[in-house]
Amino acid sequence: MKIKILTLFKEMYDGFLDTSIIKRARALGLVDIELVDIRDFSDNKYRHVDDTPYGGGAGMLMQVGPIARALDSVKTEKSYTVMMSPKAKPYDQAKARELAHKEEIIIICGHYEGIDHRVSSFVDEHISIGDYILTGGELASMVVADSIIRLRKEVISPDSLDIESYDDDLLEYPQYTKPYDYQGMKVPDILLSGDHAKIRRYRRKMAIYETLKYRKDLLKKHHFTDEDKQLLEEILEDIKNGRL
Amino acid sequence: MKIKILTLFKEMYDGFLDTSIIKRARALGLVDIELVDIRDFSDNKYRHVDDTPYGGGAGMLMQVGPIARALDSVKTEKSYTVMMSPKAKPYDQAKARELAHKEEIIIICGHYEGIDHRVSSFVDEHISIGDYILTGGELASMVVADSIIRLRKEVISPDSLDIESYDDDLLEYPQYTKPYDYQGMKVPDILLSGDHAKIRRYRRKMAIYETLKYRKDLLKKHHFTDEDKQLLEEILEDIKNGRL
Repeated sequence: MKIKILTLFKEMYDGFLDTSIIKRARALGLVDIELVDIRDFSDNKYRHVDDTPYGGGAGMLMQVGPIARALDSVKTEKSYTVMMSPKAKPYDQAKARELAHKEEIIIICGHYEGIDHRVSSFVDEHISIGDYILTGGELASMVVADSIIRLRKEVISPDSLDIESYDDDLLEYPQYTKPYDYQGMKVPDILLSGDHAKIRRYRRKMAIYETLKYRKDLLKKHHFTDEDKQLLEEILEDIKNGRL
Repeated sequence: MKIKILTLFKEMYDGFLDTSIIKRARALGLVDIELVDIRDFSDNKYRHVDDTPYGGGAGMLMQVGPIARALDSVKTEKSYTVMMSPKAKPYDQAKARELAHKEEIIIICGHYEGIDHRVSSFVDEHISIGDYILTGGELASMVVADSIIRLRKEVISPDSLDIESYDDDLLEYPQYTKPYDYQGMKVPDILLSGDHAKIRRYRRKMAIYETLKYRKDLLKKHHFTDEDKQLLEEILEDIKNGRL
């Protein structure tokens, strides 16, 4: 898989590209990340790529020309072009999974006060990572790249992908590691019982409880099995009696 | 404002800290970002901070001890402690504005397969930047820091904060800069008219149109003024007649 990122701030990716899973994935040749400096496609000796907005207003806008030329320089028949922008439903795991199947993704990052509207005509999709405002598209593009790369099965062992926070519309169950007793806070005894069936059931129950507590909205989308319904009843009973 | 980030991957922040607005904000002393390596608080000579989960399962979990000690080392009376985690409603601009008023924020970043559940008892709030899975909390913490820092008025000139994508539940209107004609795609003539009242009205109309097109869900929350209602009627008429 190839990811090509068009940006004004290549240096912002240094830490990201050299850390952890991304570094390993790159070393193994599972993903190839290419950074393209939009400024290299400026049409003036000052390497300017921005200008004032038509109709007035504060700040500078990125011009269409440099972005279009940068895009032309890396676009192939396989390319799927996205632009980081607020003009999209917030990004989610389903979209990450969809993008993880693309052979080649080009990501355009905006900066300054915005991008000339005409750039939209060159992109397949706008992507917003959430309903908040960032200084530029760079961090957002790293978030998208990270979420996609970790889904390429070869990167992480298939085992570790088994438990995923959103694939089942439930949050993860609480997890514990050593020590057993940390300043009086103990690991629930059931996890030390060795009874795998009980542990599995307990974890499922706690996953439903955590989701109920923190993300009721996800629970509404959840498809309840018969066991889930029973666990939910137990949870509501436990809450009523102060056990949870 | 102080932001203290607890992480296993300090080097991942290199590009972020040295770029653009964050760099300027740091240089001006408007924000002080401190990175704390959780590994420095390991209790063994191997600097290990993770172990296997109680009850079985794939992967390793971050232990409570090193994180608790790292937190103790930087916590003050003013600290507001958040943990990047899926256990929260997705982060939004209202939450960014709320956090921008804190004097001191500590952000805990998870990694590996998860964090020992007992760490939750030390945090004021869980923050999730969206419903997708990342390899760790580092990118998410940068997103939160970036969104907060740009709201500190002193960082960017107050002018440039006037137009904000979500503060009004409307997307931004389309913007254009030079050239006027890019390969046949022209800037709407009204923006060259010099008629400020008309331009303002046109931009408001297009902001409503963009929101209708890309984020109908935001429009439902929008408080329509009398002008907005009239503009929406015009838009619907324009769509019906193929003008939009």
